[in-house]
Amino acid sequence: MSDAASPSASTNRSEQLTLMGAGLVGSLLALYLARHGHSVEVFERRADPRLAGPLEGRSINLALSDRGWRALEGVGIGDEIRRVGIPMYGRVMHDQHGSLTNQPYGQEGQAIYSVSRAGLNRTLLNLVEAEPGVKLHFNQQCLHVDLREQTLHLRDASTGQEKVQPFRRLFGTDGAYSAVRSAMQKTDRYNYSQSYLDYGYKELNIAPGPGGTWQLEKHALHIWPRGQYMMIALPNLDGSFTCTLFFPYEGPHSFATLQTPAQVQAFFEEVFADAVPLMPELTQDFFENPTGSLVTVRCYPWAFDDDVLLIGDASHAIVPFYGQGMNAGFEDCSVLNSLLDQYGSDWHTIFKEFQTQRKPNADAMADLAIYNFEEMRDRVADPRFLLQKKIESKISAQYPGQWLPLYSQVTFSHTPYAEALANGQRQERIMRRLMPHIHTEADYDQPQVQEMLREQMHQA
Amino acid sequence: MSDAASPSASTNRSEQLTLMGAGLVGSLLALYLARHGHSVEVFERRADPRLAGPLEGRSINLALSDRGWRALEGVGIGDEIRRVGIPMYGRVMHDQHGSLTNQPYGQEGQAIYSVSRAGLNRTLLNLVEAEPGVKLHFNQQCLHVDLREQTLHLRDASTGQEKVQPFRRLFGTDGAYSAVRSAMQKTDRYNYSQSYLDYGYKELNIAPGPGGTWQLEKHALHIWPRGQYMMIALPNLDGSFTCTLFFPYEGPHSFATLQTPAQVQAFFEEVFADAVPLMPELTQDFFENPTGSLVTVRCYPWAFDDDVLLIGDASHAIVPFYGQGMNAGFEDCSVLNSLLDQYGSDWHTIFKEFQTQRKPNADAMADLAIYNFEEMRDRVADPRFLLQKKIESKISAQYPGQWLPLYSQVTFSHTPYAEALANGQRQERIMRRLMPHIHTEADYDQPQVQEMLREQMHQA
Repeated sequence: MSDAASPSASTNRSEQLTLMGAGLVGSLLALYLARHGHSVEVFERRADPRLAGPLEGRSINLALSDRGWRALEGVGIGDEIRRVGIPMYGRVMHDQHGSLTNQPYGQEGQAIYSVSRAGLNRTLLNLVEAEPGVKLHFNQQCLHVDLREQTLHLRDASTGQEKVQPFRRLFGTDGAYSAVRSAMQKTDRYNYSQSYLDYGYKELNIAPGPGGTWQLEKHALHIWPRGQYMMIALPNLDGSFTCTLFFPYEGPHSFATLQTPAQVQAFFEEVFADAVPLMPELTQDFFENPTGSLVTVRCYPWAFDDDVLLIGDASHAIVPFYGQGMNAGFEDCSVLNSLLDQYGSDWHTIFKEFQTQRKPNADAMADLAIYNFEEMRDRVADPRFLLQKKIESKISAQYPGQWLPLYSQVTFSHTPYAEALANGQRQERIMRRLMPHIHTEADYDQPQVQEMLREQMHQA
Repeated sequence: MSDAASPSASTNRSEQLTLMGAGLVGSLLALYLARHGHSVEVFERRADPRLAGPLEGRSINLALSDRGWRALEGVGIGDEIRRVGIPMYGRVMHDQHGSLTNQPYGQEGQAIYSVSRAGLNRTLLNLVEAEPGVKLHFNQQCLHVDLREQTLHLRDASTGQEKVQPFRRLFGTDGAYSAVRSAMQKTDRYNYSQSYLDYGYKELNIAPGPGGTWQLEKHALHIWPRGQYMMIALPNLDGSFTCTLFFPYEGPHSFATLQTPAQVQAFFEEVFADAVPLMPELTQDFFENPTGSLVTVRCYPWAFDDDVLLIGDASHAIVPFYGQGMNAGFEDCSVLNSLLDQYGSDWHTIFKEFQTQRKPNADAMADLAIYNFEEMRDRVADPRFLLQKKIESKISAQYPGQWLPLYSQVTFSHTPYAEALANGQRQERIMRRLMPHIHTEADYDQPQVQEMLREQMHQA
């Protein structure tokens, strides 16, 4: 990967490439493609976000982890982004009475980073604009893609004018509701699914303390796990936290039953009591911010002949509970970059290899993301679960190279997601045999437990 | 159900209803709705099939079974259809050497019926046309459905003219590639999947014998099970059989590798040797007939407010291996008819009840259909499988009312599909315990086997 940004290989013929979508993955991909010597034209539905004035401190934030960092480092902006990211070294769980419990994410010093989506997108767009060979077009809504004729039908949102834009090779980086994928879905034998959780999410805010200080532990991801629902909070640079409530659409405690400011206030005071004093704009935020839905998209193939390729959320939108949506999309860019290094302009092989390699990993990550919702909203509140995590950390130290907790494999390694999932399932089977014999951390050193573990490690 | 065709209940207010699609399910539904006192307008993409001249003897055929019969009897055409159906009392398996094995479908006299899709559709359309209050419009391609505005955007295929057709209440009976569903898929939080098998199908023919006789057993469904692929044949009235080859798209034996008439001829002579002399037009049919794909469609909800409802393949297209696609769609009509009897013009309740009742059954049937492909192409060639079926039939006779083989529950009963699937899974668990102790039919009477069975029946 060290030569990720190196000039194109000698077998590489410069080509005119088209991207639909200049979000996080689209702008990063444009950089990678341009640095392989191609001319890249990028169309984006929204207005240029950099024209919206200075960034507010508060924003939707994302958790950057190792896969994302590698992809950013490949275009030379790892350090720049790291300076505006806030490392979170673990989870802090808030129980109903405001008591806190800590759970580190990995080994000492390992962290995921809270970064602003808008800030990251702006930084990437600045880099794209400075890159020779890339042209950016904003306000270009994609009405329709004609795969046979190889044209994009675009509508300029600022002028209302429509135009037909021919393409030779198109990358669909237009996200979970991709227009490019929509055209592919209508081709013969196209496998496609969109599946929604019965939960929605609502962005809320914890205000900064006096002088821009943080009113909760800054270097942590906060969780209020409540069984059937939860709230989380990630730190911002200005001392605020962006909270997200994940909550059922219907049922006894749901968006459907919280209809008035008084109902919201009373409910929060009952179940998130320690957070309420920190959220002066709670009811206003609750009714002003939209309720977002949580979709998982799976599809296949990702390539249409050698002409069109879907990348990122367009091919594998996932729910946000493992913090891997952006990281997976960025890893797509790293993988495609390696294939460009290896195969030059042999797009047939590049597209085929890309989807063959990435599809099982995207499917595994989609499953893991749904699984982690349950863990976060329910299991992290269980002392037995936290004990198990501590024991796993001990096993990992005792058997280095043979046991990496699933969370670490996903977050702090580059092990393909499908492999991580399989390893995780094997480890979970071992823990299910071990845990009935463990009641305290000290039990780990019992000869009986150690003997059992040795056996299991041998077998598996 | 005896009053299925009775005049509308007194609570029933006559309404103007719109159907998109006049295939098998659409025309049957139009009859049911009209007989509840509603005015029904039906739009169909294709030309009127009755204008295409007399039916040929050969055609795509369907297997009608009890659920389908009940729905046809509800509009009074059971007997008429039965006269042109050919009862098939069981499967006849053809092995590589042309040896035959029989497996009855149910008890003595129970059969599924081979009927011509085109003939059935014509009969239904004649009935629809004779029904007061129904209006049929052919050549009406649905370009777009506006769910909010409540309009169908139609294009007349004979004149090219487009028009906007308002609707008050719309039924989407437009099949697996439903335009109505396509509009619903774009609404918020819509769950949708389309999933293709890696297999395609090709229609072929076995010619009639001298004087319109049948060259294979007439009253059976013929199967050439070959592990990874298979051919089947259903009898027609003119002495011919319509064959269908279910075959992988790719791989060593696949559509991809059969490219020339010589290759097709050689392959069939090798694997379907006893059929080849009966198929004089084999290679011609193979290259002239299109290769069909095999899709499963799942979606939810099926209703949009109280305005639009999907019925039949539009909401639950399945693969054809259980012969239940049409039967499930017809059962939709029976269920809706009962709800109309019960709730009159309370469409809100009717739509809600319909999708709540039918969705789990449609999902179960989709799973069963995929499962049965494996059974037909592989397991029916296994003597142990056939022995198990015989033993199950003995259990069924010994424990009447307590054990109905899964196939019979699906085909010869009105047990909801989801319940049938659950019963079938329980029975399969019992058989897995029993069969290791059974090596011949006679073993069934061994005291040890009988004791074990008694125990299992008690537990379960």
